[in-house]
Order: sequence, then structure tokens, then C-alpha cells
Amino acid sequence: MNDTTVTAGVAKDSPEQSGARELLLDTASQIMREGDLVDISLSELSLRSGLNSALVKYYFGNKAGMLKALLDRDMEAIVTSVDALLAKDHMNPEAKLRRHIGKVIDTYYNYPYLNRLLMRLVRDSDHAESQRIADKYLAPLGRAYEKLIASGLKAGVFRPIDSQLFYFTVTGAADRFFSARLVLRHCFDQDTLTEELRDRYREHTVDFVMAGILAPDRQTSR
Amino acid sequence: MNDTTVTAGVAKDSPEQSGARELLLDTASQIMREGDLVDISLSELSLRSGLNSALVKYYFGNKAGMLKALLDRDMEAIVTSVDALLAKDHMNPEAKLRRHIGKVIDTYYNYPYLNRLLMRLVRDSDHAESQRIADKYLAPLGRAYEKLIASGLKAGVFRPIDSQLFYFTVTGAADRFFSARLVLRHCFDQDTLTEELRDRYREHTVDFVMAGILAPDRQTSR
Repeated sequence: MNDTTVTAGVAKDSPEQSGARELLLDTASQIMREGDLVDISLSELSLRSGLNSALVKYYFGNKAGMLKALLDRDMEAIVTSVDALLAKDHMNPEAKLRRHIGKVIDTYYNYPYLNRLLMRLVRDSDHAESQRIADKYLAPLGRAYEKLIASGLKAGVFRPIDSQLFYFTVTGAADRFFSARLVLRHCFDQDTLTEELRDRYREHTVDFVMAGILAPDRQTSR
Repeated sequence: MNDTTVTAGVAKDSPEQSGARELLLDTASQIMREGDLVDISLSELSLRSGLNSALVKYYFGNKAGMLKALLDRDMEAIVTSVDALLAKDHMNPEAKLRRHIGKVIDTYYNYPYLNRLLMRLVRDSDHAESQRIADKYLAPLGRAYEKLIASGLKAGVFRPIDSQLFYFTVTGAADRFFSARLVLRHCFDQDTLTEELRDRYREHTVDFVMAGILAPDRQTSR
């Protein structure tokens, strides 16, 4: 469906239609999560969602447009949540970072494909779109990390640490675990996408990262 | 060179031929590293290596066989190096772990595609092949981590930590950094595959991981 048809058709924000749009994104997200992949087929999407795959064209232009919309949906939630956390005046930097790392784990548990989707879109998009992704999601997260670490350093609770490199350490540790699920499943008969393992990995990662960043005199035995 | 020429030609283990096999693997490795991808085209491989792509069929059966051979080449080097490190009787667990983490960074700097190649092969191979990969590479690395952490715990220098989860934390932090290079390049005009940044990230990661695992009374200010 091209632009003209859209304009002539139902309004984009009618309840049924916005429900269908969300359902397409939810289903795409589930397929990626279960299959541990970013390449999904429109026929599987149509089968699983019960919606005609022409709706992908209607809402998103094409498959790449739908992937972009899914990235926007997931990344916007992250940036909003990090901003809200940073704005909590009554919370100290250590508590904020603990809370944040736990949320990173939960995010990759829910969207284990997120990092690969981001890489894919940056790689395959034109420069303007890559720049949009960078400006809208990566730069704000980078600034948030910088601010949080600076405040902890000022309060004397964190060691001096490069916030950009720290960002890669934290998201890498979280991403690697859940994106390794097929290895664990095939090779060790274990599924990482269980709530029990998520909780165990969350505790491990929060403890580990906090031990890595807390100033020596703030370290406690565990 | 087609199959007939190959069969009629020199034996498989003649120096020229084994040179060609290595050259194909080296070139495939370079293409993956530079392009930040695992899917390479045989025509690019042929163009870059100067070898006829029929040699892929001759040495590896097909493209999947070549990917398997590349994984074997890179993973065998890692397992051998970890085993050698563990066998060093005069080295204490802390020094061994420091050395190992530095090597993990160097490995992902050289082969930033390695984790994705592993995931891809486990996902797309049959059960027997996935099991072979697990038995030959993942299980030995898992046992090595378990042994190293147990010896550090016994010596009182490490905190109690789950060695399997720790494995994901370390490799995830290393992998994420170098596989994010296209994001850094497109979005921040920065290339992660420079020796300067590799060295900076190595130092950061070694410090960070050691701070995360050392017992509180072994922590020093930096």
C-alpha cells in the first residue's frame, strides 16, 4: 500500500489499526526472541500474528521499516527509563547503578535480539538513518552513563572509570548471556530464557559490576 | 580451478595446496573482520584471495564447511593457549586470570566475528555437529574457568563466583566492544579496531574484571 492509499484509507490511529500495528511488532519481537535471530520471514510473521503481511507494507513501508519501528519501540523504552532513573534526586549513585544494571539484564531477557538488531540497522541503513539511531539512542545513553559515573566519582563511591568503555562492558555482559541461549540449549541442555536463570544472572552481574566499579573502601564481603 | 583440475593436479598436502587452504581461511577471516559480518560471498573471497572459488569446494566441501574450518582454526588456538596458561605451575591464579583476560581482548580484536560465527554454526548445524563444537571447545573452556576460579578461591584471592556466569561476563564484555565497531565508526567517527583503542580497552577490562573478582582485602586503589 503506497502513501496515496494510506491517505485515502482509514486513519492511522484508529484503535483496530493501531492494535494491528502493535501486534505485528509484538509478534516480530517474539519470533526473534524464540529463534535467536533478527532475520524473520514475513510469511511466518503473518502466520503467527494472523494478520495479512500486506499490513507490514501499510504500516512500515517494508520489512526494514518494521525492523526500524521495533528498534524504536524497544530503545525508546530504555532511554526513557534511564532518564527517569537519573532524575531521581533522593537516590544515590550506587543505588541508581544497581537498579540500572538489573534493568539491563531484564531488557536483554525480554529482547535478546536487541543488540544484533541495532548493529544490523546501523550497518544496513544509509548514513542519515545511522546518524538518527546514534543521535536518538546511543548518544543519550552515553551521556547518561557519563553523568551517573561522574556523580558517583564525585561522591567518592566509584573508582575513576571510562564511562564509554564501561557501557560496553555492562551491555556486553548482559547481551552475551541471553544471545548465547541456543548454545546453552543445544550443548548443555539448558535454556537461558527462564526466569530462574535470569534472576541468577541478574544477581551475578549486579554484584560483579558493582565490585568492579566501587571504590576499594566501599567493597564489602559477600 | 575446477574439481577435475584439482583432482588431476597436486596432492592435497603439497605445500602449494596447503598454502591455498590457509590463504582461503585467512582471507575469509579478514573479510569478516573488516565487514563486521559472518556471511561472506564466495565471489568476494575469490577476488580477494586470488584463488578460484572451486577450491572452497575442494578443501571444505562447501561454504558451511569452510566456516567450520575457520571456527576450528580460531577456537583450537584459544583452547590450547588457555590449557598452557593453566599448566604454568609458577604462576598464581591472579596473574593467570589477568593474563587470560588480556588474551581474550586480543582474540576478539583479531577475530571480532568469532562469537557470531560460533552462534551461527551451533544454530545452523545438525545436533551431532553442535555437540562436537560443544565438546571440543565450550566444555574445555568451561572446565578451565572452573579450575582457575577454584584455585583462586582456595588461595583466598578470589570472591566466590559462578564460573559459568563469569565466563559469559568476560567474553561478553570483550566481544561486545569489537563487534560494535560499525556503530562506533558510523555514529561516532571512531574505529575500535585500532591498536590504541585495543590497548585501552584491554587495560580497562583487565582492571574492571579483576576488581570484580578479587576478594575485598586484595583490592587496591588505582
